[in-house]
Amino acid sequence: MTAIKDIGEQGLLKIVQSFCPASVVGDDGALVTVSPGHSLVVTTDVLVDNNHFSDRTTSPEDAGWRAAAANLSDLAAMGATPLGITVGLSLPGEVSLTWVEGLYRGLTRCLGTYKIPIIGGDIVSSPVITISITALGQVLPQKAIKRGGAKPAHVILITGYHGLSRAGLQLLLNPDTELQSGDRNLLVRAHQRPTPRLDLVPYLNRMNQPVGGMDSSDGLGDAIVQICRSSGVGAIVHNIPLHPALLRYNSKETALQWALYGGEDFQLVLALPETEAKELLPYCGEGAAIIGRITEGAGVRLNTGEELNLKAGFQHFGATER
Amino acid sequence: MTAIKDIGEQGLLKIVQSFCPASVVGDDGALVTVSPGHSLVVTTDVLVDNNHFSDRTTSPEDAGWRAAAANLSDLAAMGATPLGITVGLSLPGEVSLTWVEGLYRGLTRCLGTYKIPIIGGDIVSSPVITISITALGQVLPQKAIKRGGAKPAHVILITGYHGLSRAGLQLLLNPDTELQSGDRNLLVRAHQRPTPRLDLVPYLNRMNQPVGGMDSSDGLGDAIVQICRSSGVGAIVHNIPLHPALLRYNSKETALQWALYGGEDFQLVLALPETEAKELLPYCGEGAAIIGRITEGAGVRLNTGEELNLKAGFQHFGATER
Repeated sequence: MTAIKDIGEQGLLKIVQSFCPASVVGDDGALVTVSPGHSLVVTTDVLVDNNHFSDRTTSPEDAGWRAAAANLSDLAAMGATPLGITVGLSLPGEVSLTWVEGLYRGLTRCLGTYKIPIIGGDIVSSPVITISITALGQVLPQKAIKRGGAKPAHVILITGYHGLSRAGLQLLLNPDTELQSGDRNLLVRAHQRPTPRLDLVPYLNRMNQPVGGMDSSDGLGDAIVQICRSSGVGAIVHNIPLHPALLRYNSKETALQWALYGGEDFQLVLALPETEAKELLPYCGEGAAIIGRITEGAGVRLNTGEELNLKAGFQHFGATER
Repeated sequence: MTAIKDIGEQGLLKIVQSFCPASVVGDDGALVTVSPGHSLVVTTDVLVDNNHFSDRTTSPEDAGWRAAAANLSDLAAMGATPLGITVGLSLPGEVSLTWVEGLYRGLTRCLGTYKIPIIGGDIVSSPVITISITALGQVLPQKAIKRGGAKPAHVILITGYHGLSRAGLQLLLNPDTELQSGDRNLLVRAHQRPTPRLDLVPYLNRMNQPVGGMDSSDGLGDAIVQICRSSGVGAIVHNIPLHPALLRYNSKETALQWALYGGEDFQLVLALPETEAKELLPYCGEGAAIIGRITEGAGVRLNTGEELNLKAGFQHFGATER
């Protein structure tokens, strides 16, 4: 098996550049055209080996797909149409060429679904694999979706099921769990190959009213709390749809916890007038639903009375790390 | 001393966001305005602890300054005016808050010289400090400087002295070396606080002829070879100016080697008609010079007959690592 230290930096660059359009390779920077009147949208994500992905649950192809999907989801969450991504990769010389090629294959397969190019990057030597992606998109400034855009008249719409990715991870970590293969494949695939909701961007751009929202990458509960905090409003949440496969795998209580706090489902969580929400709903597909409404004053509550807060979510550095 | 694990991710984010304009904080992506008719220029650099910087030679402020400078230099090398940078940071929980604040102070001091904002980023937990920066700029497409733009009629212009950064690194690694303090400070500063040549972008954008070129971040020799390869031409190089402090510190032979292969001087290496070169020269400052001319056919030679090639440069992964 060829290790990347055997082919040198120039050899590795040639292979990686074969995944990029020729027009962006070879200069200090890539030239990208932005449509007249559009604003640029910029978003960055860093993924670290054994923290955000690991060989135990994630093939290099899946790591690449998930890295691309997470960034494209941020663009979708802003209502933006993607222009391209840059990939900053640091990795040990012992990593196999097969791994690097798998990563870029996963990245470009996810990007290829939407005809998005890799428009730049850097590769350096490091003791730990780190993937840093910056995604660029464009949006008409008045069509940009913002977290602070929720208003008391709005309902909360989610564009699909939540908790599936978390369940898929659980199955990968506990492969001996008994579950029918259809359910297993669906949940594992939700974790390994999440789909950013770029398909909804054209519909969101056609809305006449400004829409508030973000994606649910850090969990549905986190998204609702973030939107409410940014908008200076509260929310009451009810009727979170739970996928039948989730309910066959685990208790309703755990399923709801995963749906609220699991994260990485990469759906959109939107605050908008009820009429617009009902117009958008048929385009969202399975598991999409109006799950609550925005209220005056602070506080996000479930209809059971339970209060949502960010403490139950991720704390990467702190003592509450999950 | 407060470690970042003690303040949690939200606490750390608040501190880091205090270095960014309020308008770009709080959504999945930042909105950036591109001027009508301009192309976007995108460039990415990844820096790894103990590889690209180390506590031995680089304070967190200097690491931040150098990271910003390297990316801004790539924009200058394309003839682009900066719009902003994103910062992807991965670091161990044990890193002190002081270190992180120092890094961002260095970044924003370098950026502040040119009124450039940090427009996004991500911070994650990792066993190794990695800084991944993507810089965005804009340029009129016909004014973009490209490596492939050198022509046989052109001369080669460098915008300042080379080898100073390499000498500064050597002094930091060997602090007992005898050298007058003025020279020492100048060389160490060249290493710790390099200046990207954004000051020249307005002059470059006023040129009527297309200019070929790149920056000398990987060494002057590397830049000349890269430009010639991309342009399908050769070059003869003579009269590389050597700073007097360099000659007082080391032999002329070593000084020339550092100037050619040392790297990280972040000057521009340009191929352009002699008339334009002579017009630009007075704006470049000390150490700028016409150091050769582009020739038909391949091969880059010094006037001593020595052939330049990339093998003497960096090989991050390979056995030839310096």
